[in-house]
Amino acid sequence: MVLKYYFDLMSQPCRAVYIFLKVANIPFEPCTVALRKGEHRTEEFKQKLNKFQLVPFIHDGDFKLSESVAIFRYLTREYPVKDNWYPKDSKQQARIDEYLEYQHLNIRGHCTLYFRQKWLEPTITGKQPDPKKLKILEGNVVNALDKFQEFFLADTPFINSQTVSFADILAACEIEQPRMAGFEPRDGRPRLKEWIERVRTECNPYYDEAHVVLYKRVEKAKQSAQARL
Amino acid sequence: MVLKYYFDLMSQPCRAVYIFLKVANIPFEPCTVALRKGEHRTEEFKQKLNKFQLVPFIHDGDFKLSESVAIFRYLTREYPVKDNWYPKDSKQQARIDEYLEYQHLNIRGHCTLYFRQKWLEPTITGKQPDPKKLKILEGNVVNALDKFQEFFLADTPFINSQTVSFADILAACEIEQPRMAGFEPRDGRPRLKEWIERVRTECNPYYDEAHVVLYKRVEKAKQSAQARL
Repeated sequence: MVLKYYFDLMSQPCRAVYIFLKVANIPFEPCTVALRKGEHRTEEFKQKLNKFQLVPFIHDGDFKLSESVAIFRYLTREYPVKDNWYPKDSKQQARIDEYLEYQHLNIRGHCTLYFRQKWLEPTITGKQPDPKKLKILEGNVVNALDKFQEFFLADTPFINSQTVSFADILAACEIEQPRMAGFEPRDGRPRLKEWIERVRTECNPYYDEAHVVLYKRVEKAKQSAQARL
Repeated sequence: MVLKYYFDLMSQPCRAVYIFLKVANIPFEPCTVALRKGEHRTEEFKQKLNKFQLVPFIHDGDFKLSESVAIFRYLTREYPVKDNWYPKDSKQQARIDEYLEYQHLNIRGHCTLYFRQKWLEPTITGKQPDPKKLKILEGNVVNALDKFQEFFLADTPFINSQTVSFADILAACEIEQPRMAGFEPRDGRPRLKEWIERVRTECNPYYDEAHVVLYKRVEKAKQSAQARL
């Protein structure tokens, strides 16, 4: 029975697991969940598909699993996956884990919160966000990105590693997200800019494939910013 | 060379790794870091001990590692650890991972934010928190705890498992924290109350040992609440 992967490419961890499944050549049945239509909010979804009412998740036969990092680790045990994505060497693996745990309350927490307040909620409700609040959230993103460069890209071309791993895919997908809200993480961060290009190259054509809709929205955000000038 | 463990028992993940090291009988040299004195904020600390300027972390010879969950996973590879703490069975391990990843932006995120705003910052600055903001943060804790019971303790005596694991230790340590701020997570949650008592029993005497200072502060919070009546 083929692995079923449930996702929406508008979600950062969904894109990360999608790209990983593709680059690692793991066969799966793609099952899209349209978050914008609230498909995950029904009682049926909760009972039959996913009790957390979130994406991404997998069904591997009757085994149901949520949480992108937990899914990724499970896949590395169940399928033959090249060592660079999650090294078997204990210390190297710990270095990848260090980022995978760190990111939740840092890169993910701050980039997501800013994206939601600046773009997602105004798009849904039509109400503009409080500029003071937004300034604080943007400051948190700036701080998180600067620390990210300092902590994880100081001596290595990839996160804590000489070769690309799942940590890089997850981080890149999170860092792309605020671009839809008109914030460019690459500006003033040459090391981050070069790193994200390396990750993209390592993961293409799947990186670009997973970001098609995001790229369009980034373009739209740039155009409306120029129109305001 | 013996493993060096750097911690402050006022921190939830520090208590969790401390209890785990003790119950799993892993030899270590305890190195305390007094957060209240700002010992982690010096340039020397950053250069020599931990670049993140956070606790917990370990030095295993010249290998330095941060992030409680990454440390825990590293220890399970490096030392002989009983299977219940982190099952080798791929699906069972994924179930433990599911909670370890979920908790960051849920149980940990909400309990910590509430504790900081209600107790830590007023204790340091002497300024009382905004009651409206505090009400929202308390609502988030209530919601997170209710979901925790629903998602992770529905059918099993421990988190997604018949036996105690590191997920239970980490969750219990986080859930104890808001008690110092006068919030009792056990009230109105009999399943959570019984679960936390089971975790305590499985991990004693180390659970109580790690919580000595917390228990004293909880007692103090109760007394000052009674004095206000």
